[in-house]
Amino acid sequence: MHRSIAFIGLGAMGGAMAETLVKKQYKVTGYDLHPEAVARLASHGGTGAASAEEAARGADILVLMVVNAEQAEDALFEKLALEASKPNATVIVCSTCAPDRVEAIARRVEKAGRGFVDAPVSGGVTGAAHGTLTIMAAGKKAVFEGVKPVLAAMGSNLFHLGEQPGQGAAMKVVNQLLCGVHIAAAAEGLAFAERAGIDPKIALEVLSGSAAQSWMLKARGPRMVDYDSIVTSAVDIFVKDLGLVLDSGRAAKMALPLSAAAHQLFLAASGMGHGHEDDSQVIETYRALMKKRD
Amino acid sequence: MHRSIAFIGLGAMGGAMAETLVKKQYKVTGYDLHPEAVARLASHGGTGAASAEEAARGADILVLMVVNAEQAEDALFEKLALEASKPNATVIVCSTCAPDRVEAIARRVEKAGRGFVDAPVSGGVTGAAHGTLTIMAAGKKAVFEGVKPVLAAMGSNLFHLGEQPGQGAAMKVVNQLLCGVHIAAAAEGLAFAERAGIDPKIALEVLSGSAAQSWMLKARGPRMVDYDSIVTSAVDIFVKDLGLVLDSGRAAKMALPLSAAAHQLFLAASGMGHGHEDDSQVIETYRALMKKRD
Repeated sequence: MHRSIAFIGLGAMGGAMAETLVKKQYKVTGYDLHPEAVARLASHGGTGAASAEEAARGADILVLMVVNAEQAEDALFEKLALEASKPNATVIVCSTCAPDRVEAIARRVEKAGRGFVDAPVSGGVTGAAHGTLTIMAAGKKAVFEGVKPVLAAMGSNLFHLGEQPGQGAAMKVVNQLLCGVHIAAAAEGLAFAERAGIDPKIALEVLSGSAAQSWMLKARGPRMVDYDSIVTSAVDIFVKDLGLVLDSGRAAKMALPLSAAAHQLFLAASGMGHGHEDDSQVIETYRALMKKRD
Repeated sequence: MHRSIAFIGLGAMGGAMAETLVKKQYKVTGYDLHPEAVARLASHGGTGAASAEEAARGADILVLMVVNAEQAEDALFEKLALEASKPNATVIVCSTCAPDRVEAIARRVEKAGRGFVDAPVSGGVTGAAHGTLTIMAAGKKAVFEGVKPVLAAMGSNLFHLGEQPGQGAAMKVVNQLLCGVHIAAAAEGLAFAERAGIDPKIALEVLSGSAAQSWMLKARGPRMVDYDSIVTSAVDIFVKDLGLVLDSGRAAKMALPLSAAAHQLFLAASGMGHGHEDDSQVIETYRALMKKRD
């Protein structure tokens, strides 16, 4: 009964999502640029493929969880995955991409007679492994309904945001806008508390229990106050994601002053060498701005 | 057993705090520039006074919940409340003031032999009426311990942030920094969702359940999406409070780029005539920036 799925992009997120589909009895054929990721899926009950085209051959549904829009275009159009899929197949792009890029991909996919849903996700590897992701989907209602069981298998918070492909991507961009600004705001507040000679742990406790609270303050605040080598998500991820927010703002002719300021702070942290550290380390930008000359 | 308290500044917050102290068996003598506020306290079991000096006569503890540092200085020094209090009295300033102004007041109070604690509060009129405020206190440990029962009567979340007067004010400033930036960030995100043609109610639902969540997003987001004439706190309050954040940043030589950007957005909303509306209406700044010319 379950339709066959081609899953392209088996990284930390994609691999976990594909395995979740396998667990829920879907027939999943996977491909990734890294052969070890393909082997891992095969060892978990999926089928490995040697190319995007091979994975897509005869598939009812093509899920792409690649790094960006360029990789999605390459797999679909250059590496012929789209052409190899069934003539009535549906393409689902879960990667975080700029909305206008997603729209352009959707137009080419629909021109080839296939359905298109853009469906970026949020919830991390844990959500991917447990099938509890938040999925921000957009696309024609009938096409969305057709792949709803597959999306619901991957995410417990499933939203249909609109009929126009790219609106899912736009929602993800808005999500990242708030996440990025909130991390930077937590850094600005906690650094200011440090400057005032307040014990930053007490400051964090006060802020976490007041109207100043945010999910990111609670998640990242402790690692701003007490350095920890754990990296849940890197500074450079927000250099990229707030970059995507600002690119999307440019494309939509929309001024985003807070996002622009937050991006500069992450950029500076990356420029100081913290790019691969946890995104909480954006607080180092403020510490640099407070440091007295020798 | 309970010591006598002079309470100066009986507005919405101060009046409720003074009544809470009366309920908890404190002898409270109150003064306010508005005689009706004094009469209200008297009708709730407190004692009314005709001047700050009269209220303070023989008081063990002077609590000030006036509008700003100017009013606190006026009551204490010009209107002679400090001189009228007991020689071993303690002054508690609960008003939201700039940290350096609080420090200056503390120096004059301590020079006159009285103890000083700065203790700004958070939690609104509800918290004031129920004695559940968050209190961000600073001052010499022994002085703080001396007035701890009185502070604990007003607030269930009591923090001692440091020995130096002004650190409580600094903590409150940091609290307002995050509150203000989070409201503006919610507006930036929801306006961008509107721009992308996403139903803002669905966008708010997505964001409220994800890592993009903040207390302010949940509190103010619904009123950004659906206009409501209710005013919990006005745009002009954040014009003032983010102004105080930036003044404090200047005094401390601390760059606060997100606060600076957020302040501009509230200023613009006020400039467009939304100053007395709910602070959620900062979203009108973004709507103005998206409006096509006629």
